[in-house]
Amino acid sequence: MTGVDAASIRVVACDIFGTTVDWRTGVAREVARTAADHGVELDAGAFADEWRDRYLPSMERVNRHERDWAYLDTLHRESLDELLDVHGVADAFPDAARRRLVHAWHRLPAWDDAVEGLTRLRRRYVLAALSNGGFALLTTLVKAAGLPFDCILSAELARAYKPAARAYLTATDLLDVDPAQVLMVAAHKWDIDGARQAGLATAFLERPLEKGPARTADRAADVTSDLAVTGFDHLADVLGC
Amino acid sequence: MTGVDAASIRVVACDIFGTTVDWRTGVAREVARTAADHGVELDAGAFADEWRDRYLPSMERVNRHERDWAYLDTLHRESLDELLDVHGVADAFPDAARRRLVHAWHRLPAWDDAVEGLTRLRRRYVLAALSNGGFALLTTLVKAAGLPFDCILSAELARAYKPAARAYLTATDLLDVDPAQVLMVAAHKWDIDGARQAGLATAFLERPLEKGPARTADRAADVTSDLAVTGFDHLADVLGC
Repeated sequence: MTGVDAASIRVVACDIFGTTVDWRTGVAREVARTAADHGVELDAGAFADEWRDRYLPSMERVNRHERDWAYLDTLHRESLDELLDVHGVADAFPDAARRRLVHAWHRLPAWDDAVEGLTRLRRRYVLAALSNGGFALLTTLVKAAGLPFDCILSAELARAYKPAARAYLTATDLLDVDPAQVLMVAAHKWDIDGARQAGLATAFLERPLEKGPARTADRAADVTSDLAVTGFDHLADVLGC
Repeated sequence: MTGVDAASIRVVACDIFGTTVDWRTGVAREVARTAADHGVELDAGAFADEWRDRYLPSMERVNRHERDWAYLDTLHRESLDELLDVHGVADAFPDAARRRLVHAWHRLPAWDDAVEGLTRLRRRYVLAALSNGGFALLTTLVKAAGLPFDCILSAELARAYKPAARAYLTATDLLDVDPAQVLMVAAHKWDIDGARQAGLATAFLERPLEKGPARTADRAADVTSDLAVTGFDHLADVLGC
């Protein structure tokens, strides 16, 4: 069943947005609340989707050096400003409301299997968060969700976003391990592909509901990875934790 | 009793060697074991003291740019090599034994009050390790000692060692807080002075036994700090956690 030698792995590095926490539910909830507070009608789930759609393109511009390094909060704010314009509701959302919405990405609910599965994995492995979220964002989010990571790693430390190799290799350098000793766990094909190309072992974690009921999330059949699992509890089973 | 407004603090940043863990006991134990394995007689406690004496000077050479950035493990190894020469026992310690000794700094016992006191502090504050130890060293040490930090911060992330201001300010930048919102907890005057000069709030934590029975550790009477406490439990009391 396993495509990696569990004994060769020393670090389990986990993507956060979508893989460990349910960004769509958390962000849509805050969008709905903030819109209601300002008397605006919006499809909060669809708005969250459109916001997230701008995520990868905004990071690609940084990775291609079309702009200087910018924190994820800055990218989220720029995408939000554009989106409120597109929806013709820019005037209804003052600065404080926009900051509150950007901050929604700092507090997101964990998927049901995350805390227990991660707790089991942590008994045997160094357990790291490895996300494009900023260091402060991740620290806040992980603490609020009670996720038992040994350390926080962030694309911010590399000043390059996943799937750039540097984002993964800065993490392996900091932990003083070879890339092949790190198992990257992610729910997105682009992340698994980036990790594999950087030499990491990979576990695709399928989250069929990540993008809500109307959209299709990445599926295991379409992803090349060493392992494919359905949750952190399943990953702990596969690795014998 | 408190010289800081507990409500203005968001992050409690803790020094590790001497403040949170008892480096002398841990290192002396490994020195004694390794020396015995190689048939060498050494005063293990005194050897640990002499090794630690070379710690600050070795980091100062990096901070003064007299040499390129070097990881703490590298500095520890160089000091160890010198010290074994000074003691005339270099031939008795092969490379593997030296690596084992450098690794002793990766696994050190926590002071008795650390786990419980830190657990209480973590309920209210973001709790960070902020040490001159490398990121991998700190992650290993904190995990093995069961210390409940929210995140690991290291001088390595700044490529400057405490007491250089950059070591503290890289940490506050990463956590996206003002220096005055961070309470630095340390058992050494040089660390407290560095943190205060960088604008952090400070708590001197007195560890009278840090340097063993024959040497005098830094004492509260000689240190200018916002708070002076005798342990992490005492700090939790003072901050009302």
